[in-house]
Amino acid sequence: MRDGGHILALSGGVGGAKLATGLASRLAPEALTIVCNTADDFVHLGLTICPDLDSVMYALAGRNDTERGWGLANETWTVLETLGGLGGEAWFRLGDQDLATHLQRSQRLREGANLSKATAELCRALGIAHRVLPMSNDPVRTVVQTASGELPFQHYFVREQCRPEVTGFRFEGIAAARPQADFLARLADPALGAVLICPSNPFVSVDPILQLPGVLDALRACPVPVVAVTPIVGGQALKGPAAKMMRELGLASSAEAVAAWYARYPGLVQGFMLDEIDRAQQPAIEALGMRVRVTNTVMKNAGDRGMLASVALAFAQEIAGHP
Amino acid sequence: MRDGGHILALSGGVGGAKLATGLASRLAPEALTIVCNTADDFVHLGLTICPDLDSVMYALAGRNDTERGWGLANETWTVLETLGGLGGEAWFRLGDQDLATHLQRSQRLREGANLSKATAELCRALGIAHRVLPMSNDPVRTVVQTASGELPFQHYFVREQCRPEVTGFRFEGIAAARPQADFLARLADPALGAVLICPSNPFVSVDPILQLPGVLDALRACPVPVVAVTPIVGGQALKGPAAKMMRELGLASSAEAVAAWYARYPGLVQGFMLDEIDRAQQPAIEALGMRVRVTNTVMKNAGDRGMLASVALAFAQEIAGHP
Repeated sequence: MRDGGHILALSGGVGGAKLATGLASRLAPEALTIVCNTADDFVHLGLTICPDLDSVMYALAGRNDTERGWGLANETWTVLETLGGLGGEAWFRLGDQDLATHLQRSQRLREGANLSKATAELCRALGIAHRVLPMSNDPVRTVVQTASGELPFQHYFVREQCRPEVTGFRFEGIAAARPQADFLARLADPALGAVLICPSNPFVSVDPILQLPGVLDALRACPVPVVAVTPIVGGQALKGPAAKMMRELGLASSAEAVAAWYARYPGLVQGFMLDEIDRAQQPAIEALGMRVRVTNTVMKNAGDRGMLASVALAFAQEIAGHP
Repeated sequence: MRDGGHILALSGGVGGAKLATGLASRLAPEALTIVCNTADDFVHLGLTICPDLDSVMYALAGRNDTERGWGLANETWTVLETLGGLGGEAWFRLGDQDLATHLQRSQRLREGANLSKATAELCRALGIAHRVLPMSNDPVRTVVQTASGELPFQHYFVREQCRPEVTGFRFEGIAAARPQADFLARLADPALGAVLICPSNPFVSVDPILQLPGVLDALRACPVPVVAVTPIVGGQALKGPAAKMMRELGLASSAEAVAAWYARYPGLVQGFMLDEIDRAQQPAIEALGMRVRVTNTVMKNAGDRGMLASVALAFAQEIAGHP
């Protein structure tokens, strides 16, 4: 165990997965737990699909497609193309290899395994040494509220390609969902060193994790720094609809607005990592009561990912040493 | 409509599918209905798989793999291989294109379509003009009784590769299953010209159809010839475990023994089609009260399939004309 203690990373999909792989390159398996949002999960064609868990697993396994930016490398699309020819629902892009993940997970859930166990088994089969946890074993489903009505998240995200104007979100099932047990246990563990909020969508990736019953209280009660990494760089989301959502919600699409969003949870985030290009926003974020670290947050390769992880870990240690 | 009336073919998988394509090459879409055994069906990885329906559909669509002898041509195996790597159940050989059929069928069943409707939709998507019906929309499941206990059919057939010694069969659910409505309607239709029992396994492909409540009575009540085509040629099954099963059940593995098996249903079969190589068995089969037609029953190509279909149709008309 490094002296910085155990690191708990809260992650959405692709952006979070990048920082997660950076952290995994810097931390021993026993020093890192990655908790993934599951509010994007849905059942499609009878398969339980967990996009954020899969993005993180595939990235940690080194099997993610870096060019396409999602899914598996060397993917083929035979099943989906054939299904389309049969008149089936082909809007959700399921690759052949990816489908095997969903078939196996769905089968294990049918056999009575919970999502944590199914995830742990998939991780083992994929050769992933670090711990990946779903935020909850209970179903939570993001519903996107739009000008033209409510949409299940994947219908909004994939089928409608984020076109509808967002007015808000609700997380169906969240009031009854229990945070995954090891997630809560880590938050209460004296060995915990820091909590990192990955550069993920604050509305639909991070908020569902934070709003699980008991999570905010546990985060506030634990004496370690909570550090968030901006998912917005130069006013743009590097991936996904975060910036578009911010504008539609009447927010600025800026790192500062993300920090302000997290500041709605008083006492939650102590440190905020800002991209060099957004250096001018540092004072405004500090005014929200957060310490700020300015660094390169754009992860184009393994070097960038490891570097950002190292900076985040050092920043957290610094905050812990100088509260 | 040809003057021989509507033809109803009762079929299992691969062997039956060959004659079905022969019949389809000789008969207009409105002159042929193919009723498929569904007692081989099973739910695997959450998918409803109907091997006999699929064999018939794929053959009629001209998409079956003639070299391998089952499944689809130009098939790939990415999902199954990936699933195996994840520790999933990979013993049932699901090709990528084939999987699309199962996903779509399962989805339609979940949406409330019955198996007839799901089958009709798949046939339409595959460009099949002739009517293919499941024998029933209710689940019937063949259980193979063996010296070492009972096995679900696909476990016996695929996982155990027909190795266990067979002592008998039972068809779970058959007492409560209703024959598909259009199947029964065809049997009662004055336009019916003949019923053909395809060269399929008499124990696990044809018997489940015959033993559906009401089917035997309806077959005996209809005034048209019932003609069976031998699935055993020169003592061997051309495909599948029929000959092995016959020996294990203490029967001769011969065409004559198949005829004798059908003769257990008194008054059912009027005509039996025997291969030239088994010509010597003609008197013994005639002694069972059946008329016999000796012809080439081995279907190696489209010509053979069409020829056997023509001979079967002519034989049935001959019987109808000379009762």
